[in-house]
Amino acid sequence: MINEFNEIFHPDRFFGPSSEIIDIARELYSNVKDLPIVSPHGHVDPKLLALNQPFPDPTELFLIPDHYIFRMLYSQGIRLEDLGIPTIDGTPVETDHKKIWKIFAENFHLFLGTPTGIWLTHELNDVFGITERLNSKNAIEIYNLIEKKLNEPDMLPRNLFDRFNIEVLSTTDSASDDLEYHKMIKESDWNGRVIPTFRPDAVVNIDKPEWKEEIQKLARSVKTQINNFSDFIEALKARRKFFIEMGAVATDHGVQSGYTHELEKSEVESIFNKAIDGKATAEDTNAFVAHMLIEFARMSLEDGLVMQIHAGANRNHNNIIADKFGSDKGCDIPGRSDFTNGLKELLNKFGNKPHLTIIVFTLDETTYSRELAPLAGHYPALKIGPAWWFHDSIEGMTRYRERITETAGFYNTVGFNDDTRAFLSIPARHDVARRVDSNFVAGLVVRHIITFEEGQKIMKDLTYNLVKKAYKL
Amino acid sequence: MINEFNEIFHPDRFFGPSSEIIDIARELYSNVKDLPIVSPHGHVDPKLLALNQPFPDPTELFLIPDHYIFRMLYSQGIRLEDLGIPTIDGTPVETDHKKIWKIFAENFHLFLGTPTGIWLTHELNDVFGITERLNSKNAIEIYNLIEKKLNEPDMLPRNLFDRFNIEVLSTTDSASDDLEYHKMIKESDWNGRVIPTFRPDAVVNIDKPEWKEEIQKLARSVKTQINNFSDFIEALKARRKFFIEMGAVATDHGVQSGYTHELEKSEVESIFNKAIDGKATAEDTNAFVAHMLIEFARMSLEDGLVMQIHAGANRNHNNIIADKFGSDKGCDIPGRSDFTNGLKELLNKFGNKPHLTIIVFTLDETTYSRELAPLAGHYPALKIGPAWWFHDSIEGMTRYRERITETAGFYNTVGFNDDTRAFLSIPARHDVARRVDSNFVAGLVVRHIITFEEGQKIMKDLTYNLVKKAYKL
Amino acid sequence: MINEFNEIFHPDRFFGPSSEIIDIARELYSNVKDLPIVSPHGHVDPKLLALNQPFPDPTELFLIPDHYIFRMLYSQGIRLEDLGIPTIDGTPVETDHKKIWKIFAENFHLFLGTPTGIWLTHELNDVFGITERLNSKNAIEIYNLIEKKLNEPDMLPRNLFDRFNIEVLSTTDSASDDLEYHKMIKESDWNGRVIPTFRPDAVVNIDKPEWKEEIQKLARSVKTQINNFSDFIEALKARRKFFIEMGAVATDHGVQSGYTHELEKSEVESIFNKAIDGKATAEDTNAFVAHMLIEFARMSLEDGLVMQIHAGANRNHNNIIADKFGSDKGCDIPGRSDFTNGLKELLNKFGNKPHLTIIVFTLDETTYSRELAPLAGHYPALKIGPAWWFHDSIEGMTRYRERITETAGFYNTVGFNDDTRAFLSIPARHDVARRVDSNFVAGLVVRHIITFEEGQKIMKDLTYNLVKKAYKL
Repeated sequence: MINEFNEIFHPDRFFGPSSEIIDIARELYSNVKDLPIVSPHGHVDPKLLALNQPFPDPTELFLIPDHYIFRMLYSQGIRLEDLGIPTIDGTPVETDHKKIWKIFAENFHLFLGTPTGIWLTHELNDVFGITERLNSKNAIEIYNLIEKKLNEPDMLPRNLFDRFNIEVLSTTDSASDDLEYHKMIKESDWNGRVIPTFRPDAVVNIDKPEWKEEIQKLARSVKTQINNFSDFIEALKARRKFFIEMGAVATDHGVQSGYTHELEKSEVESIFNKAIDGKATAEDTNAFVAHMLIEFARMSLEDGLVMQIHAGANRNHNNIIADKFGSDKGCDIPGRSDFTNGLKELLNKFGNKPHLTIIVFTLDETTYSRELAPLAGHYPALKIGPAWWFHDSIEGMTRYRERITETAGFYNTVGFNDDTRAFLSIPARHDVARRVDSNFVAGLVVRHIITFEEGQKIMKDLTYNLVKKAYKL
Repeated sequence: MINEFNEIFHPDRFFGPSSEIIDIARELYSNVKDLPIVSPHGHVDPKLLALNQPFPDPTELFLIPDHYIFRMLYSQGIRLEDLGIPTIDGTPVETDHKKIWKIFAENFHLFLGTPTGIWLTHELNDVFGITERLNSKNAIEIYNLIEKKLNEPDMLPRNLFDRFNIEVLSTTDSASDDLEYHKMIKESDWNGRVIPTFRPDAVVNIDKPEWKEEIQKLARSVKTQINNFSDFIEALKARRKFFIEMGAVATDHGVQSGYTHELEKSEVESIFNKAIDGKATAEDTNAFVAHMLIEFARMSLEDGLVMQIHAGANRNHNNIIADKFGSDKGCDIPGRSDFTNGLKELLNKFGNKPHLTIIVFTLDETTYSRELAPLAGHYPALKIGPAWWFHDSIEGMTRYRERITETAGFYNTVGFNDDTRAFLSIPARHDVARRVDSNFVAGLVVRHIITFEEGQKIMKDLTYNLVKKAYKL
Repeated sequence: MINEFNEIFHPDRFFGPSSEIIDIARELYSNVKDLPIVSPHGHVDPKLLALNQPFPDPTELFLIPDHYIFRMLYSQGIRLEDLGIPTIDGTPVETDHKKIWKIFAENFHLFLGTPTGIWLTHELNDVFGITERLNSKNAIEIYNLIEKKLNEPDMLPRNLFDRFNIEVLSTTDSASDDLEYHKMIKESDWNGRVIPTFRPDAVVNIDKPEWKEEIQKLARSVKTQINNFSDFIEALKARRKFFIEMGAVATDHGVQSGYTHELEKSEVESIFNKAIDGKATAEDTNAFVAHMLIEFARMSLEDGLVMQIHAGANRNHNNIIADKFGSDKGCDIPGRSDFTNGLKELLNKFGNKPHLTIIVFTLDETTYSRELAPLAGHYPALKIGPAWWFHDSIEGMTRYRERITETAGFYNTVGFNDDTRAFLSIPARHDVARRVDSNFVAGLVVRHIITFEEGQKIMKDLTYNLVKKAYKL
């Protein structure tokens, strides 16, 4: 018995806790495991698939860009400099990538029981054929093996895209992006579907020092001047049109609170002018963001783009790290959210429109059963995005289903988002989601809440049909 | 194996996740499944049992009055007009009940995994003998079968009441209600025990446009004038006396925040006078409600009525629906609650009185382990009401027990409330509660936290003894 | 089958819910059950081990000092006076300890499913050999048996300490304590390691009536005068030095909100002077506490003491009980916490220091996955204390692991704290923790998230290595 429990990549992994559940989950999973991957929200760089160059070395590939990994190492007292994380001011950092890999391998026990550990184990096994857990002894051997494999033609990004059976991959792109790499992909002889997503956060956060520059970029992208709020709105509409031409089906909005409130025309114009003068305060920004969510919903109603709202992260909580290494360095920390009050105005204006789709993602799990499920189980426009970020995990996704399904059902959810910048981890992440959903649905079947046949149909919807419907793919 | 999992009404339903738990849960359940139903809080119309007329057609019976059902259909873009939900302004709505039933049947998959789906499956099976899941193919056949059965004498409300083995059924009645139908039942030759509950919300929400009319109704009901706060208090006391004579054992208070605070006499008088002048603000209302919870507790201490507080719903979140269709149309949305601070003054004044019973219901599950269990595990007057509304579900009731029992034990809870206006669903709801509790207690037995014999005793208390004791029935 | 489920002290207790999990949990537990007990935070009176006198009678031993027990009895309407709880003003209370014990025994069903019930069952079985559940029939017989045993030499505190296999036991001591009993233990011929913990709450809560007296005690303890804030800081540093000499490895801070904010020097001095004049307000106190957490972290950075923050209790929620019986009488009630904002300043100042250790304990379980795991999974100085107080229970500890592990891993946690003043319950509490952790880890093994061998290593770390490392023991 114990032997079976020493495999690191068991075919029944993540099923449990009882043989009754495991048996049903295995059956349900077998019907969905090979369905194509639909990835409607993520952060893969389109350049990767445009240029189709070999991946860099293992440390550059797995570790340096992945804040899930280096935040955990940092939490145990390992300096980011020693992990080769580049500094903003150019202070030199470790460049010996084998040395960095060794630190990672020595500390792999930190990732036991975490999704990062699971994804990496999957990638090493499934993509590179490695059947051992990474550790200090096998670190360099595994490094060399990966490095060698990365240079094989099979391992070029487009070949992996096809092998991963990705039907569509969405990237996330700033409002003024020229989508050069998307064009390159479209114009190539490769048929992979890679589409942009319109994310205008940088032009909405009016108190950021870089905002002025972002507005100028936006202006250049539409070849006009942006001197006032009307110009701004027109520019955004033009950019959305361009994104749609380039295949976009959705927008994305990263906000701290999710509060929505439409300002008087004169108010919003005056705040915008203040921003142009470099005088916008944090309070102005909150009011402006709350207003812009209403504006963006109005645009979505017109142009059909699905509106995604990712709410609840306190970005750059650790000033020392943010100042030295920049954003997205593992120091974004969730806080409480209040969707019942925050989304009220947005939903009263547009929530009753069945042709609008607003997908909300939360980092505050208390809002699942208390707010999001009751809201999405009523308003036609509102859907609940999958378990996000820190909650994109076995227990996190299980809690998501347990707390949402009874009030909102399965059909006010929208399938899975991998939300990753780590291209190689996409199959691992979708596989975890399919397994966790299979296990959850098996729990319903075992308890005779639904039948096995209903469970099979639901699994196909959760894996493939719902995401295509929600994102109009 | 799979065949067993295609039954929709399995005798072991809702037990799991392992055979160890299922075996014990089945045993525990078998001892309580036939105990009489005690229903201390609900919304069945007493007229139903007073007049004892046949039920209307299936759509009128199951769908049109049930906001759990039509909110889910609405969330998927089906118009309430198309479901026959009556409008306030009399705008015509669909009247072809078979057509509406068909929409419901076609969309029954929306309810898979939800309590509504479970209750309906139970009712169709147990009351009407239907062994198939409702779907677009069998919709009309099932409609016809139900319609036919509804005209059989067995299906008259009083016969069902007896067949359901209901020992007592509480209704919910406004403060000025003449309890005409309760009188009719009492004076009839039928022995069913149907008792009123005193719910004075309409005369307490002083900023509602209808408040003035409600106060006049209250005044008429006690045949005096209500010109000031003292008159108001005296009227309430008189009405409580009348309700008690008519069999009432409890009051009920639906409040948004659960905040309690006694005002100075002059303050409350001045707010009341402002209300009489039609000038009460939202802020006044909050202060008045906070004060009235203290007053009502004081009255309960005198007259012995159990005080129920249902806190946390933001009523009529969707103005468009509320304006067109009225209240209780599926657009009440929970928000955060704070009982630790909110109930502090009430509990400091009256919480130490062992002969007073205050039962609190929450829509914010985070308060179970953080606030309500610690409070109820200390204050003699405070008890925790069962999992409520969106949480009256398998996972919801399981979370309730898991988060409350370790701090408050079983004996600071009060059994189950079905809280329903759907008379036919009462046995289904109590059956789910009995099964979920059996399963939870089986989990304790399997893990040797309590013995099987202790589990049997606890199950009888949770099902029958605690509710009778808490509500003094 | 049923017979097995009528044992009250089963060797597989707390394992479940399936045979798959039970089998692995039993194996994992068998490797850690006999490891020494390391108790880095608790409230055992050092006098007990200094004087090494026989324990008093069962009621005095188990009931009167244990607010977990009498709060539950009180919640069911039993007066504290009838339980012999001493009053502040000397009002006489029940002194017949057999009579009190009988009340407890008659009501033992209140504790079924609670940790108190589990701990007591363990103690009676393991220490006194009692194999029946306490009840009204066996109450006096059990009382007599315990009383007799308590006079055997085996039952002297030091003998039990050795038999319990306690490697180190931390007490909690006020800033001005002379640590007389710690000295007595050190100077005795007994080798048990009992160390103090520096808890300066009483000198920090500047609006308490007793604060002035506490400051005078502090001044006397360092043989100087404390006339201003600098004197105060110097006195604290001197006391910490003394505590370190006496073996202390940690400080402890009980705070309501966990908010941290450094004041300007002039501001904090002025607040301190206000306090000296007896004029400090609640607002001043909050500002002062927020400032002092920063000061204490700065001191810890210098002197190496581990900093523990216990946040979230509303002390003495029930004024009637607090006024009549004093503090720690079961009427402390948790409220919401906000660590993301509250700890931000502290963590920005000191959170990046890998040699500092700040251990945070929460009573608000919503902060596990939303705040504490993301924070501890990033900041090197921050660790998450084990499930605390109301959550030191089977379900509570399970939720703790489920919500923390995926983001913070196992290695940003610090093992178990028994946090008890009930010396006899220490082995029971550690045993519950070891069993719950074994069961949680077995869940990972059964689901092939980690291997059995990895699970074995993790269990040893959770039980023994992590606590020693975190507290530098």
